[in-house]
Amino acid sequence: MPKSFVNKAAQLSVVKIGGNIVDNPDALESFLDDFHQLEGQKVLVHGGGVMASKMAEQLGIETKMIRGRRVTDGDTLRLVTMVYAGWINKSIVASLQKRGCNAIGLSGADGNVIPSIRRSPEPIDFGYVGDPDPGKTNATFIARLVDGGAVPVFCAITHDEKGSLLNTNADTIANTVATACSKLYRTTLYYCFEKEGVLGDVNDPNSLIPVITQGEYEEYKQSGIIAGGMLPKLDNAFRAIEGGVSEVVVLHAKNLLNGKGTILR
Amino acid sequence: MPKSFVNKAAQLSVVKIGGNIVDNPDALESFLDDFHQLEGQKVLVHGGGVMASKMAEQLGIETKMIRGRRVTDGDTLRLVTMVYAGWINKSIVASLQKRGCNAIGLSGADGNVIPSIRRSPEPIDFGYVGDPDPGKTNATFIARLVDGGAVPVFCAITHDEKGSLLNTNADTIANTVATACSKLYRTTLYYCFEKEGVLGDVNDPNSLIPVITQGEYEEYKQSGIIAGGMLPKLDNAFRAIEGGVSEVVVLHAKNLLNGKGTILR
Repeated sequence: MPKSFVNKAAQLSVVKIGGNIVDNPDALESFLDDFHQLEGQKVLVHGGGVMASKMAEQLGIETKMIRGRRVTDGDTLRLVTMVYAGWINKSIVASLQKRGCNAIGLSGADGNVIPSIRRSPEPIDFGYVGDPDPGKTNATFIARLVDGGAVPVFCAITHDEKGSLLNTNADTIANTVATACSKLYRTTLYYCFEKEGVLGDVNDPNSLIPVITQGEYEEYKQSGIIAGGMLPKLDNAFRAIEGGVSEVVVLHAKNLLNGKGTILR
Repeated sequence: MPKSFVNKAAQLSVVKIGGNIVDNPDALESFLDDFHQLEGQKVLVHGGGVMASKMAEQLGIETKMIRGRRVTDGDTLRLVTMVYAGWINKSIVASLQKRGCNAIGLSGADGNVIPSIRRSPEPIDFGYVGDPDPGKTNATFIARLVDGGAVPVFCAITHDEKGSLLNTNADTIANTVATACSKLYRTTLYYCFEKEGVLGDVNDPNSLIPVITQGEYEEYKQSGIIAGGMLPKLDNAFRAIEGGVSEVVVLHAKNLLNGKGTILR
């Protein structure tokens, strides 16, 4: 439906947590307390953590890497689906339900909510890895759940609509869900990670940059103030803003309720 | 809502498949073809199969049995949740989506759809095992999905509303879902298993009993014609009928579309 006809008075928060929280039971419980208290309609996206790698080792499934990136073969796909869509997703759902938060766990295959495209095997075959098919994310399905009082909880497993599940990057899932939902809601995307936000000096935790606009981001990149692993995360974030997301907040999970972090606009 | 005020013109099929199909990729694909073709609104409930036991062995998780029944300790709960709610459930969902069937995978924790009660540790502590809390199954949640064109796919994992997931019998899940939905739909419950139906002589596959009423069932039990492992299945089935389910059909999975089997009324 044309964007201009949508009443975007409704606010939606899409919150992404990474493996560092998933791996730490105390941090996860504390985060879920905060997430439950976060006002308004919301969606959670969670990463995977180290459990799948640990189990792969126990099961003798070899970790294949090409140019520093993991290859998802059939055994690995089975394992990550078990761990991410099974244990981690359902544990988080049960834990939120305990708090009275009506969570419903989803992979991208459920309700065909996030159809993905398997990455081309050329030049490098990363196996069962895929990226959401642009424009195909089913925001109406998400909205029907959210407007019915449910809180969707996404793991980073999708499918190709041809019967194969696909391992997908959790940041990309968060970005995709937030962008799709921004057609229906005024959407804020929260990327929780292990730092306070974007720092002007990586060695100084007090150098938090409170707000970064797209123009400023280009300057920070050129001057080398923002570099390394932060770049793909922020590139992703600004793509979400270009796609219609109102704000992206990069912050430490412990600051979800006070919102202290770096706001990207 | 009072049963008499519900328009039960709508028909719902609740189909349960066991581990014998889940364990056999060809049988599963063939069954999913048929299930997709089954007309009308429908729900699938699947059992677990041998994958969890095989993985337990590989991971060195000891299978504890008390009086012939498996104990679900913490490690086992984690494993069955991974296998049932993760790999098996999402594989079935992806496979149905490939066929254009809008499947959505659920545990009993998702949407708090099947709250369960953990079994008392007295006299025997079976661990994280639970049974659906009577009357608490959320048929309205299921109906909202079904009426929206989705096909819920249930694994046999539930939760206790206190944060714990629980291992639950898949036949019981099917029974519970069908009974709850019978308040809103004219509901038929299909128990697919490895035989043609209820046999008058277990050694003669041609001795299929086409229809059994509650009264006849009591006679068959007293005369010993129906005995052994069939008893808990049929007791369960007649409980569903007492609970409001219109018909229970016990049949071989390959006969889902022609309906050939034993009809219980």
